[in-house]
Amino acid sequence: MASGRLLVEILSIGDELLMGQTVNTNAAWMGHLLENEGWRVNRCVAVSDEEEAIVDALKDAESRAELVLITGGLGPTRDDITKHVLCQHFGTQLVRHPEIENRIVSWFERRGRQVLQVNRDQALLPQSCKPLDNPLGTASGMWFDRPGGVTVSMPGVPYEMEHIMEHGVIPAMRSQLELQGRLPKRGHMSLLTMGTGESQLALTLGDMEEELERGGIKLAYLPSPGSVRIRLTAEGEAVQQLAQAHAAVLDRLSDWVVSETGVPIDEALGQFLVSQGHTLAVAESCTGGALGAALVSRAGASAFFLGGVQCYSNAAKEQLLAVDGALISEFGAVSEEVAVAMAQGARKKFGADFGVSITGIAGPDGGSDLKPVGTVYMACEGPLGVMCVRHQFGRDRTRNLSMSVRAAAQLALKAAREWAIESKPASGVADSL
Amino acid sequence: MASGRLLVEILSIGDELLMGQTVNTNAAWMGHLLENEGWRVNRCVAVSDEEEAIVDALKDAESRAELVLITGGLGPTRDDITKHVLCQHFGTQLVRHPEIENRIVSWFERRGRQVLQVNRDQALLPQSCKPLDNPLGTASGMWFDRPGGVTVSMPGVPYEMEHIMEHGVIPAMRSQLELQGRLPKRGHMSLLTMGTGESQLALTLGDMEEELERGGIKLAYLPSPGSVRIRLTAEGEAVQQLAQAHAAVLDRLSDWVVSETGVPIDEALGQFLVSQGHTLAVAESCTGGALGAALVSRAGASAFFLGGVQCYSNAAKEQLLAVDGALISEFGAVSEEVAVAMAQGARKKFGADFGVSITGIAGPDGGSDLKPVGTVYMACEGPLGVMCVRHQFGRDRTRNLSMSVRAAAQLALKAAREWAIESKPASGVADSL
Repeated sequence: MASGRLLVEILSIGDELLMGQTVNTNAAWMGHLLENEGWRVNRCVAVSDEEEAIVDALKDAESRAELVLITGGLGPTRDDITKHVLCQHFGTQLVRHPEIENRIVSWFERRGRQVLQVNRDQALLPQSCKPLDNPLGTASGMWFDRPGGVTVSMPGVPYEMEHIMEHGVIPAMRSQLELQGRLPKRGHMSLLTMGTGESQLALTLGDMEEELERGGIKLAYLPSPGSVRIRLTAEGEAVQQLAQAHAAVLDRLSDWVVSETGVPIDEALGQFLVSQGHTLAVAESCTGGALGAALVSRAGASAFFLGGVQCYSNAAKEQLLAVDGALISEFGAVSEEVAVAMAQGARKKFGADFGVSITGIAGPDGGSDLKPVGTVYMACEGPLGVMCVRHQFGRDRTRNLSMSVRAAAQLALKAAREWAIESKPASGVADSL
Repeated sequence: MASGRLLVEILSIGDELLMGQTVNTNAAWMGHLLENEGWRVNRCVAVSDEEEAIVDALKDAESRAELVLITGGLGPTRDDITKHVLCQHFGTQLVRHPEIENRIVSWFERRGRQVLQVNRDQALLPQSCKPLDNPLGTASGMWFDRPGGVTVSMPGVPYEMEHIMEHGVIPAMRSQLELQGRLPKRGHMSLLTMGTGESQLALTLGDMEEELERGGIKLAYLPSPGSVRIRLTAEGEAVQQLAQAHAAVLDRLSDWVVSETGVPIDEALGQFLVSQGHTLAVAESCTGGALGAALVSRAGASAFFLGGVQCYSNAAKEQLLAVDGALISEFGAVSEEVAVAMAQGARKKFGADFGVSITGIAGPDGGSDLKPVGTVYMACEGPLGVMCVRHQFGRDRTRNLSMSVRAAAQLALKAAREWAIESKPASGVADSL
């Protein structure tokens, strides 16, 4: 193999990718993981379930890359032909692995499902490959050593592929690179900003970014709706300067930083509440439960999340959260007054330290001149007061809903931080901050 | 150009795709649109913002495909080089289009933003291309006629690309094909199944699938966690047999069909409730609001969704849903008894026709021998009774949560259908079923 960064290509197989029935999230997931390893993805190719297309793309990829990662086409149905194509390509034949067949049979038995011959035949693997264990499904991964590098084939089911990558491919590839003395020291640190765009952040960092680059530390701006994550990457000796550089960037961007570690805003909120021993309840109108769902998507949410009310109807706002019906009549369900009353209602009903609410017009209809589609009010009440924000998002319903969830988490984190700091001297724990 | 189906290749440009910072949703969106046109996407390739990589991939794609669609690399920053590469490739030079420059300037003025020279320079386009209008941004699309076909370059911003595809590329390409007498008839129909796997479905359809294929109708199996969508595709004369074939497949798979049109299960639930004029409320423990969020993710949810309670804590179950605390003590929060009481509580509190609940152990901790991680109870109470199901999912928290949402929607749809059918004769509308 060559020296320097490991060059990788990704080959995704399946008509469903070309027809747009499936979004190729696998390629992005793999790209992210490989980038974090310091390896370089050179090209991602998606082809149909046809022998000629697969072989052509595979030859192309192998001619350029040391590591070729194939996903898809390993299902039990007859349109999945990757395994046969790999036998042709590597001049080998399928052999049955009894221990893998036993695992497949017990996989079906545990689920109380009948095991068919096509399922058993997933234990047929090319003789020259090293099987990679797939405890989450029935299609094994396959590792082929070849002149100039390695080719690996994996199932297209995302969590099966992810397991094989994390437990099979990455460790084995690391060992090969280590033997060759090609595993450079490499470190990453991140931070998350909200409230401004990529270009403003880049402008603010301007001189600092150039200085960091001269010192071997690179910045990457990773925008997503409503936030920009900034990642610092250091290689070799520069790893020792990484923490200091991270602190300097944090300081420069302090107006916009919402998470010093770069974790998503809902995760940052959960972590902070847990660290303070505080609890939270939600009141969600237009988001229908998406903020709560985001908060419980990570284990350990019960340490801070008590629950909430999905008050999609006005009746629910009044009856379950004790929002005064007169407020709704006078100001409308989408208003500062109702958002505040919802947050107060959630806090009180659940006996939480903080209550956070969302009420808005997600679209595509329901807007007015005064409150166009994308108008969203959110409030947070805590032990020391209440904060309310009006946002004006765009016209796209899906985007408005996800922006609302993030913005509400940001507001709750802001409130929790502000009041935690203010209350610290009184409770005598300020020194432990 | 050749006869038969139009062969298309998609070339996506940008380091962010290879590093997994951006998921290539553009390719999926384009694939879906092109497939519906009856055109065939042969390959999707993502390459970095490097001249050599772009030219290599472009030459490859043009050697195979009549229509090559390029996205990305048209921004104003210096790492966006697509335009210069295209000039080299097509042996032409950049020329300034005053009318496009005027549009760019007014685009910035409308937004109250300063227009920089780099922004004005987006009116520089290769002389040999036909510009394609982009009213949503500042980078025009570019249409190049070339020997053997057409190459089109578009910005990577999804809604800009989508506009140019729908208003520029598709109509122009249709005209070319029409002139050549190459616009074949084509049709799709889908259905959604839950409760069994791809292999079982393929086995059940066995003989029928072969017969359909002889008649020009192809089946595709599209699995996702907990469900398999089946799509029938007919071309030319076979389009007339499509509805009949769809009915035959529905009949054969009736045990597993949850949506006759193939829409996701939560959408099918919403559509059915709206068609019956029925309302729904939810009670979500482990999912924290994800079922409600799924139901309101589509416009029009207020026609059937009243709201719910995110009863993550036991106190919330008791106080907001009037679940008897003794039930929780005796059977545990994750039990048939509590799931039923939660569904009843939600139905009553919200005055809904149906109440549906979810309570389970999402993991990674909290399991026991009797109720291991992945144990989820869900219940649905309606006007004619209550149904409860216990599921045993796996060990992955994220997957358990999404499987729970889908399974609960399935249960609610089952209950709503069963009781709607039973109640029909009484209301005298059975004949219209």
